[in-house]
Amino acid sequence: MISIYNKINNKHIASGHRVGIVGGGQLAKMIGLSAIKLGCEIVILEKTKKAPSTSLAIDTLYGDWNDPSNLLNLANMVDVVSLENEFVDANSLRVLEEAGHRLYPTSTTIGLVQDKLHQKQALSDAGIPVIPFAAVNSQEEIIQLADQLGWPVVLKTRRDGYDGKGNITLNNVTDIDDAWSKLNGNNQKLYIEAFCHFTGELAVMVTRGLNGEMVNYPVVESVQKDHVCHMVRAPARIDNELSDATIKLARKAVEVIDGEGSFGIEMFLTKENQIILNEMAPRVHNSGHYTIEACECSQFENHMRAILGLPLGSTKMIAPAAVMINMLGEEQGHGYPVGIEHALAVKGAHIHVYGKTTTNIGRKMGHITALGSDINEAEKIASKAASCIRFGAQK
Amino acid sequence: MISIYNKINNKHIASGHRVGIVGGGQLAKMIGLSAIKLGCEIVILEKTKKAPSTSLAIDTLYGDWNDPSNLLNLANMVDVVSLENEFVDANSLRVLEEAGHRLYPTSTTIGLVQDKLHQKQALSDAGIPVIPFAAVNSQEEIIQLADQLGWPVVLKTRRDGYDGKGNITLNNVTDIDDAWSKLNGNNQKLYIEAFCHFTGELAVMVTRGLNGEMVNYPVVESVQKDHVCHMVRAPARIDNELSDATIKLARKAVEVIDGEGSFGIEMFLTKENQIILNEMAPRVHNSGHYTIEACECSQFENHMRAILGLPLGSTKMIAPAAVMINMLGEEQGHGYPVGIEHALAVKGAHIHVYGKTTTNIGRKMGHITALGSDINEAEKIASKAASCIRFGAQK
Repeated sequence: MISIYNKINNKHIASGHRVGIVGGGQLAKMIGLSAIKLGCEIVILEKTKKAPSTSLAIDTLYGDWNDPSNLLNLANMVDVVSLENEFVDANSLRVLEEAGHRLYPTSTTIGLVQDKLHQKQALSDAGIPVIPFAAVNSQEEIIQLADQLGWPVVLKTRRDGYDGKGNITLNNVTDIDDAWSKLNGNNQKLYIEAFCHFTGELAVMVTRGLNGEMVNYPVVESVQKDHVCHMVRAPARIDNELSDATIKLARKAVEVIDGEGSFGIEMFLTKENQIILNEMAPRVHNSGHYTIEACECSQFENHMRAILGLPLGSTKMIAPAAVMINMLGEEQGHGYPVGIEHALAVKGAHIHVYGKTTTNIGRKMGHITALGSDINEAEKIASKAASCIRFGAQK
Repeated sequence: MISIYNKINNKHIASGHRVGIVGGGQLAKMIGLSAIKLGCEIVILEKTKKAPSTSLAIDTLYGDWNDPSNLLNLANMVDVVSLENEFVDANSLRVLEEAGHRLYPTSTTIGLVQDKLHQKQALSDAGIPVIPFAAVNSQEEIIQLADQLGWPVVLKTRRDGYDGKGNITLNNVTDIDDAWSKLNGNNQKLYIEAFCHFTGELAVMVTRGLNGEMVNYPVVESVQKDHVCHMVRAPARIDNELSDATIKLARKAVEVIDGEGSFGIEMFLTKENQIILNEMAPRVHNSGHYTIEACECSQFENHMRAILGLPLGSTKMIAPAAVMINMLGEEQGHGYPVGIEHALAVKGAHIHVYGKTTTNIGRKMGHITALGSDINEAEKIASKAASCIRFGAQK
């Protein structure tokens, strides 16, 4: 155990520890729910008012999370700091460590992951299969490299991309100019990747403790719609050999970046049954939300355990299958889950509403998980419940 | 659905409803965790600072919960008011209803339950077997009645008793004077019950919706130590016929008091296999904590659903067996769970720490639930984890 009785208990209760989270969205909320169950408290640093996790934080600091003084204010209130996203500048985070605060994952890990070119280089150097990639500094370089890699290629921002934001597929030379300007290539670092003709997407959550102890959840199938996670099926319907290989790769990836906490590793499966690491997130991840109901200890509780230096929990599934479906905003509007009374009538559907006041097309507003004796049963329950709820619809 | 979009959202987020809870202990905390998962927010009215649920409430009002003005302040901030205990005066609660606020359970239900003499009279009138009881207004009456009922008898306070507090067993006439003075018989209404020579204690959680929809959880075995719930085994190892009869009785009891929300019904099993209702709690209950991990929808989420007028969730167990063990304070001291790092190493143990800053002998500080393929397996895991943690011990 890294820390003992919380000595800074000047405001509220604390029989456990006080944990600071940079970012106040649904991931911070679900980490927070796990923390509170264990008797801990959370403090949030968030840019915008009314974020999902602020309703369960004992305190919320508002401000730019790239400003070291805000990060230090947070760190001074808590025993350990963690993050719900990889967009906080690693150099700002380093200030916390230099001041003697605990930060997990470390600024070095975040730095390696947040620049996707560095991430891919590190993984590739360690022998992990990744999609062929290269830095590009000009439109001319794109043509050169795409001719080598073969068209189409994907032009990506090195930082701050997620859910399809920050990447554009280039089918030929005529696509370059527009994409370069959309991704602000003159002011933002970009890179390109070969286009991967995958047959499916797999993901694995791995939690690694401060002492190097490591656990993994089962391999899952991840289904995207418009570049956003739509559904996760657990476990993936692949053979044991492939599953073992996928898990081995995911665990190795977390070791390569010396990760501490829960990590999401997203992979492509090719038609030759090859596994290629697509990207990793240095945090709890949408592909692991199913673990709340489906596993003995969720990705969120294991993240808490890891960053507090506590033993990790069992990742065993408690049902043969689970399916998670995201609920996204359909149009700009209020954040009320219209139809929730019908969704709640679907027996066995576990409904999570993040509590965002407003929505927009594609905004993640909640998710539904169902367990089943097989994937089909679980998917049927989750789909039925999800089909009842609309976010952003008039009511 | 009784209420629509939360219009009083002047402080924080709210994609769901805002719920007020009178009392801020661990029951309010666990109701709150369920509420937040569904996108709701909670506001607490609590007497003392640093109560377990205040860390996850968007607001906490401090004050005497028997003062109608405090109750009205709470009600004005929320869509619906509920309670975590039965000690709030029913006459004070009635003021909320008279002012047009939603209160579930209603003041009539609370009033019926909080005076145990009235509770027993109502249940008995409805044909539910209860232990023979009678009001007593003097020490002389005790002698008279005990001679009729047969010694020993149990002298009890009509209100505010729990966990063995407020009741004393009288073996003979010489015990009366001391018990009468300890229970403040000159100023407090008392009653007596025959002593029930039971062979076991059973409990059932029932949730009843605003439209009369009713669900029940399985019958469980409740094991007490020093009048405090020590362990709950789910399901109870009784035959189907007895189980059905027990459930029927529990459901009927909730209908008798016209209950809305989750209710705990505690029963004695006699050596003749007779079921006698001991007492009921108009709230979520310790005997139902196991439902968080062991059932598709917990007693807490079902309580939320009920008071919001939403469909009730499935009470089906997701494992063949579950055991819950309470963690109590061992001596006066701080509230830190000493040894939690060892308990967390027990795979499959779900550890709940309530987050109380200080403890005392017998104070409920947390609980542990484990699932298993049978009761023995679950009990072994829960016992092993519970044996690691001490509250109040020096560290």
